[in-house]
Amino acid sequence: MSQSLLPSVKGIRLASVPAGLRDWQRDDLLLVEIDQGAAVSAVFTQNPFCAAPVVVAREHLLRGRVRALLVNAGNANAATGARGLSDARACCAAVAKALAVRPEQVLPFSTGVIGEQLPLQKLLDAIPPAAAQLCHRGWDRAAQAILTTDTRAKTASRTLEANGERITVAGIAKGAGMIQPNMATMLAYVATDAAIARPLLDTLLNEAVGASFNRICVDGDTSTNDACVLIATGAAGRPVKTPGGAGYSALRQAITEVHIALAQAIVQDGEGASKFVTLQVAEAESPEEALRVAFAVGRSPLVKTALYASDPNWGRLVMAIGNGIQGGLDTRRVHITLDGVPVVKAGCRAPDYREAQGAAVFAKAAFTIRIALGRGHCSEHIWTCDFSHGYVTINAEYRS
Amino acid sequence: MSQSLLPSVKGIRLASVPAGLRDWQRDDLLLVEIDQGAAVSAVFTQNPFCAAPVVVAREHLLRGRVRALLVNAGNANAATGARGLSDARACCAAVAKALAVRPEQVLPFSTGVIGEQLPLQKLLDAIPPAAAQLCHRGWDRAAQAILTTDTRAKTASRTLEANGERITVAGIAKGAGMIQPNMATMLAYVATDAAIARPLLDTLLNEAVGASFNRICVDGDTSTNDACVLIATGAAGRPVKTPGGAGYSALRQAITEVHIALAQAIVQDGEGASKFVTLQVAEAESPEEALRVAFAVGRSPLVKTALYASDPNWGRLVMAIGNGIQGGLDTRRVHITLDGVPVVKAGCRAPDYREAQGAAVFAKAAFTIRIALGRGHCSEHIWTCDFSHGYVTINAEYRS
Repeated sequence: MSQSLLPSVKGIRLASVPAGLRDWQRDDLLLVEIDQGAAVSAVFTQNPFCAAPVVVAREHLLRGRVRALLVNAGNANAATGARGLSDARACCAAVAKALAVRPEQVLPFSTGVIGEQLPLQKLLDAIPPAAAQLCHRGWDRAAQAILTTDTRAKTASRTLEANGERITVAGIAKGAGMIQPNMATMLAYVATDAAIARPLLDTLLNEAVGASFNRICVDGDTSTNDACVLIATGAAGRPVKTPGGAGYSALRQAITEVHIALAQAIVQDGEGASKFVTLQVAEAESPEEALRVAFAVGRSPLVKTALYASDPNWGRLVMAIGNGIQGGLDTRRVHITLDGVPVVKAGCRAPDYREAQGAAVFAKAAFTIRIALGRGHCSEHIWTCDFSHGYVTINAEYRS
Repeated sequence: MSQSLLPSVKGIRLASVPAGLRDWQRDDLLLVEIDQGAAVSAVFTQNPFCAAPVVVAREHLLRGRVRALLVNAGNANAATGARGLSDARACCAAVAKALAVRPEQVLPFSTGVIGEQLPLQKLLDAIPPAAAQLCHRGWDRAAQAILTTDTRAKTASRTLEANGERITVAGIAKGAGMIQPNMATMLAYVATDAAIARPLLDTLLNEAVGASFNRICVDGDTSTNDACVLIATGAAGRPVKTPGGAGYSALRQAITEVHIALAQAIVQDGEGASKFVTLQVAEAESPEEALRVAFAVGRSPLVKTALYASDPNWGRLVMAIGNGIQGGLDTRRVHITLDGVPVVKAGCRAPDYREAQGAAVFAKAAFTIRIALGRGHCSEHIWTCDFSHGYVTINAEYRS
């Protein structure tokens, strides 16, 4: 992941301000203005107990050409009923007034504590000053403004030449806990100045999310507020209209890479996490089976505490693999390697394996566990982290 | 749960010995002899990566009238391949020789570290002395011998009069982590001197397990070695042959109560646990939906750390409820009470709810969270515990 300064994206202006939404001294409100003519795609949490801003953003995305995003940290505006919905709409109206657009052209997003009403007046008061500060160079400050329990900002970008034009793809994300996106994501915003119309932009977003945010797991809980937005302003470059068009594959790769870098950054900043682990599941009967096994391993508290302890307790891996399988499993076909070191062969400890080899891998800050099921030809991978005292401390003390 | 001395069960003799299976000074091998003519039912883990003794016990249960159980702690004999199977069979042969029965009349069970070969010779050496010590009063010592990370023994019993006969039901269990039995259980052994033939005994076991071990969750991981055995020796009382027969309902209730007491004892001794929580889910569309929501809440690391912190963070409850629902949910119909205190009404904070009320409930050692979904007429409940620094410590240090 690039921690360097993000490049600006033609057609996008940003402003971050301190709205005082919690008892803290920091930016906690982000306003993003999008030029006329841009295409915007978004995916949202599949949790049916979704937050008010998710409901409103879904509605607005169907109705109008999106011209602005409003993101607040510190309060999720989730489980807040009719008042939560009306507050989210009031925020959109205030942004619409400040930017001279229609309210349904504004998408609202919130992240923070669930179950508290928004401090609406503070948001309304902060919107006009934010509108006055919009600038193209606001990306890095924006990446800070949207954080909650995150310990660092998450940013990624790529630049490329396509059709003889210089194209930029830049993105920011937040998220550290309540992470196992389910066909959706944490908060993430990616923009490019390439010209890509919907529904092609939707296709690109779905592909990128499938390869990134849908393959991470911190604690297995899916948030009420997840959202991922992809914006193509069209301010640079001729339109990309079809998958076969010139420059498409380079642009697609850049968009996917930015999403993957942001998703990996969320896992690397997982609450209390000290390890970044790639779980590869190969020789599965189907991609679904491979992912089911990968998430069964990646979610297992027993596997995650072993990762934390740098204890190559592979017995817990086989336990968790079994829990990800539906129906029977010929365990004699299962092989596991740790950064290439064979630890399980034919369902048992590999004959040449020595505990010191596994311990050396598990002591690394980042490594790969590869599980071959011997059932088919499908492979998938996810990224996950360990489960530490830090996770318990952070989540036992979050509201206090 | 009764911590008092267990009564003996006519037709069952037990012996516990220190076989030195790990570096500890304690009983770690249990031998149970069952009188001729007894009926034995058992259910096993649904994890397809099941242990060698599970494979052998399933085979033997199909083939012969069971006359003995052999249980070792400290080594799970799981992921041990062909040698694990042959070791389990060798143990059965040794027991058969010592008790003058056939090897297929012996069921083997193991619990402990996964992925290490059994120290077979130590087991074989310990079996004859165990056979020499068999006695009717061995229940309490047996409850100690089968423990691993458990901090206390788990025992339960009931006595009743049926058909004018005095009947005893006694049981022991072990388990503290890797607990979310999946149509199966942790290690549990329940015996009665009532006379109940199979398949009626199978029905009683399935009912009892459904009401007990299939409704608990410590960490959501399903073990490779779970097993629950119900023995009816028939040494007291006339046979119970049909569900309608005299004394059936009292016996059924006693058997179920013993299973529930043992299952609750496992949760109360959950690794690092400080809270015992009953999760009731009401007004679900189906029993399956109620249980899915209950386990989504009971498994959530964010809910469990809030329980640990005595923080009535009900926002995490609604997040987890959403994750247990398939398809849409009208959140305006969701109500939650904490030991009867309304905290969520119509999907939002209850108007009269004060945080101090929730905090007072969450500070208790045992309490009930009731979730009404407003979707139907089905109710289910499970028992779970919190997620503490103790859990991380225990599982980060288990093998060291």
